[in-house]
Amino acid sequence: MSVTAALGFVAAGCHAGIKRRRPDLALLATDDGRPVTAVAVFTQNKFAAPPVLLDRARLAANGGKASAVIVNSGNANAGTGKAGLADAERMGQAAADALGVDPETVLVCSTGIIGTPLPMDVILKATPRLAKKLSREGAEDAARAILTTDKVAKQAVVRGSSFTLGGMAKGCGMIAPNMATMLAFLTTDAELPRDTLQRILADASDRTFNTLNVDGATSTNDTAMLFASGRRGKADPAEFADAVHKVCEELTLQMAKDAEGMTKMVMLKVTGAASDAEARTAAKNIAENNLVKCSWYGSDPYWGRLLGAAGSAGIDFDPDKSSVAYGGIIVSRAGTNVDHDADAVARHMKNEKIEIEVALGLGKGQAQVIGIDLGPGYIKENSKTS
Amino acid sequence: MSVTAALGFVAAGCHAGIKRRRPDLALLATDDGRPVTAVAVFTQNKFAAPPVLLDRARLAANGGKASAVIVNSGNANAGTGKAGLADAERMGQAAADALGVDPETVLVCSTGIIGTPLPMDVILKATPRLAKKLSREGAEDAARAILTTDKVAKQAVVRGSSFTLGGMAKGCGMIAPNMATMLAFLTTDAELPRDTLQRILADASDRTFNTLNVDGATSTNDTAMLFASGRRGKADPAEFADAVHKVCEELTLQMAKDAEGMTKMVMLKVTGAASDAEARTAAKNIAENNLVKCSWYGSDPYWGRLLGAAGSAGIDFDPDKSSVAYGGIIVSRAGTNVDHDADAVARHMKNEKIEIEVALGLGKGQAQVIGIDLGPGYIKENSKTS
Repeated sequence: MSVTAALGFVAAGCHAGIKRRRPDLALLATDDGRPVTAVAVFTQNKFAAPPVLLDRARLAANGGKASAVIVNSGNANAGTGKAGLADAERMGQAAADALGVDPETVLVCSTGIIGTPLPMDVILKATPRLAKKLSREGAEDAARAILTTDKVAKQAVVRGSSFTLGGMAKGCGMIAPNMATMLAFLTTDAELPRDTLQRILADASDRTFNTLNVDGATSTNDTAMLFASGRRGKADPAEFADAVHKVCEELTLQMAKDAEGMTKMVMLKVTGAASDAEARTAAKNIAENNLVKCSWYGSDPYWGRLLGAAGSAGIDFDPDKSSVAYGGIIVSRAGTNVDHDADAVARHMKNEKIEIEVALGLGKGQAQVIGIDLGPGYIKENSKTS
Repeated sequence: MSVTAALGFVAAGCHAGIKRRRPDLALLATDDGRPVTAVAVFTQNKFAAPPVLLDRARLAANGGKASAVIVNSGNANAGTGKAGLADAERMGQAAADALGVDPETVLVCSTGIIGTPLPMDVILKATPRLAKKLSREGAEDAARAILTTDKVAKQAVVRGSSFTLGGMAKGCGMIAPNMATMLAFLTTDAELPRDTLQRILADASDRTFNTLNVDGATSTNDTAMLFASGRRGKADPAEFADAVHKVCEELTLQMAKDAEGMTKMVMLKVTGAASDAEARTAAKNIAENNLVKCSWYGSDPYWGRLLGAAGSAGIDFDPDKSSVAYGGIIVSRAGTNVDHDADAVARHMKNEKIEIEVALGLGKGQAQVIGIDLGPGYIKENSKTS
C-alpha cells in the first residue's frame, strides 16, 4: 500500500486524458480531510515550475500543513509563466472543492513536457471522479499515475516500532529524464515536530535522491514531500530518520534501475579527498562525464577517463597518490596501470550493478553517487519529444 | 602547406606502427635546425600527461625556444607515470639525435589511448627515417599523422601584409574525444616578442578552441603551440593577433565539423547575462546538458531544456526576463512559449549548423560557444576502446 500504509492517508489514480492512454492524475489525501504536518524539498533550479512556486508559498504561508496533494503526469506545467501559476491554483482548487477542504492546504505537483499549457479541461473534469475513488487500496493506482517515461511504479514501506512510513516516487534521478522530474511522496503516522521532519527529509534527500545522477540535469519540478498524520503519536527521531533514509534509498535504487536507457548502474565512491565537499565534486564530475558514461555502457574499465574527470574537477588532485578499483580490484595506482586480474574485472563489468572506487589519497573526504551509463536508449528517449 | 607555409619550417609524417595502418608519427622542425621563439598553452587537467609535463618544464627552462616538435598519435602517453615521462624524454632525444639539435629545444606531444605505455621501439626506429623526409611539402603528411578518430586533416593558412601564419590541428574540442586530445601547431615567419606571442596565443585559444564543447571533458594532453621563425622580421601585433585568431577559428570549425558522432553543430550565444563570466558559465552548462544535446540531435527546438539548463547553472537568472531564439526566430519570452513561425524554426533545425540565442535580459554579459549534438555516433565511438 506504500503511500497509504501509514494510518490516516488515502490515495487514488486515474486516466484524465493528459496522456493518450496511461494513468496521468493522482491524488493523495488525509482520510478525514484534516490538514497534517507537511514538509518538502524542492528543485534548486531558478527556472522552477509554477506548481513548485505555488507549493513553496503555500507551505510557508500556512505553517507547513497539507490535507492533500494532486499530481499530474504528462505535462510539467513548466515554462508556462503566469498562466501556468493560475492553472496550478485552479488544479489545487478543484481538488479542494472535491474534498471539501481549504485550498490553502492543497499542494500541487506536475511532471512531463515543458512549455505546453496544462489541459485544464480534462484535469478539472476528472478531479471530482478521482476524489471519489480515494481509498487505502488506491496507493498502487496513484503510484502508477505519477509516472512519465518510467517503466515501473516505485514504492517502499518501512514499519518502525511505533510508526509506519511509506512512499512512492517517479523519475530517474538528479535528474531530468525526458519528461523532466523526480517526484517523491512520503507519508507517516508518526508525530514529530515540523522542523525535525524538515531536517530529516532534507538530510535523507541529500544522501539518497541527490546521489543519483542520471544526466547531471536539474529538473524544473523536482519535489519530495513528507506528510505526517501523527495518528500513532510520537516517534523516536533517530529511528524515524533511519526509516526515512531507508525508504528514500529504496526509492532511489528503484529509480536508478528504471533510469532512461540504463544498462549499468554504477555505485561510484570517491575516497581520500581533501574534504567531503571535494569528494562530492569529484564524484559528480566523474558521473557526468560522457566519456566515462560511454565506457560504462561498453563494460570497459577505462580508469584513465575516471582520473581525467577527477583531474579536471577543480579539486585537489595528485595522480601520484591516486588509485582506482573496479569491483574491489585495484587496476591503477599512482596514476598508472598496475598488474591485476583483468578477467575478474571483466566479469565484474558485465554486471548491471558496478562498483568503482576512486581513492585520491589526500585526506578523509568521501562521497558516493549512483551513476548511470550512457547508451543508445537514453538518446532514443530524449531526442524526440514534440 | 599549412604548417610549413611560413618561412623557416619543414614537416613530415609517417606510419611508425603505433596504429595498425594509419600514419601515427609527425615531425615539425625549423629548416636550419636553429631554435626559434616558441609559446604554448596546455590542458588545465591535473592529470596532465607526461609529454605536457615535459614541454611545460622545457619551455620554462630554455626561455621559450624550440627547434622541433615530435608528435605521435594512437597513444596519449597519459596515465603512464614516471616511466611515461622517461619515454617522452627518449622520444624527444631520438628526434634531437636525428636532427642534430639540442634535446632541450625539442618538444613532444602524444594523443591516443590513456594508460598504455608508448611502444618506444617502433617510435625510436621510425624517427631517423621521419627526419630524413622533412620538407616544406611534408605539411599534409604531418597533419594526417597527428589524427586519431578524426576523419579529416585540419589545416589553415593566413597571409598577412608582412608575414605568413599556418597551422594544423587534430581533435574534437574542449574536449576529449575517444582518443583524448586536441593538438594544434601554428608556425609563422613573423618576429614578435615571446610575451606578445604567448598572450596572443592564449587569447586566441580562449576565444576559439576553448569555445568548442564536444562533451565537457578536458583532456590530459591538450596542447596548442606557436613557433615564430622571425624570418620576415617584425609584424604588427594587432594584425598578427587577428591572423592567429583567424587560423585558430578556422581550425576550430574544422574540428567541430569532425567531432565524434556530430550531426549538428550549434552556434550557441548567451546574451544579457550579468557578466561575461556568467554568460560563459550559462553557455557551458547548456552545451554540456545531455537533454539539450539530445534535442539537438532530434532537431527538436525544445527551448524549455535550454532554460532549465540556464536555471541550474548557478548564475543570475530570471525566467521572466529571458527569451530564446532558434535561427533568429524568437520561440520563448518571459519563460513561456510565444507564437512563432514553427515551420521556419523546423527548417532551421534541419541544418547541420544551428544558431541559438538565449537572452537573459539582465545585463551586458555575453559569450558564444560551439555545441555538438549527442547522437548514437558518439556512443559508438566511445563505448569500446580496449
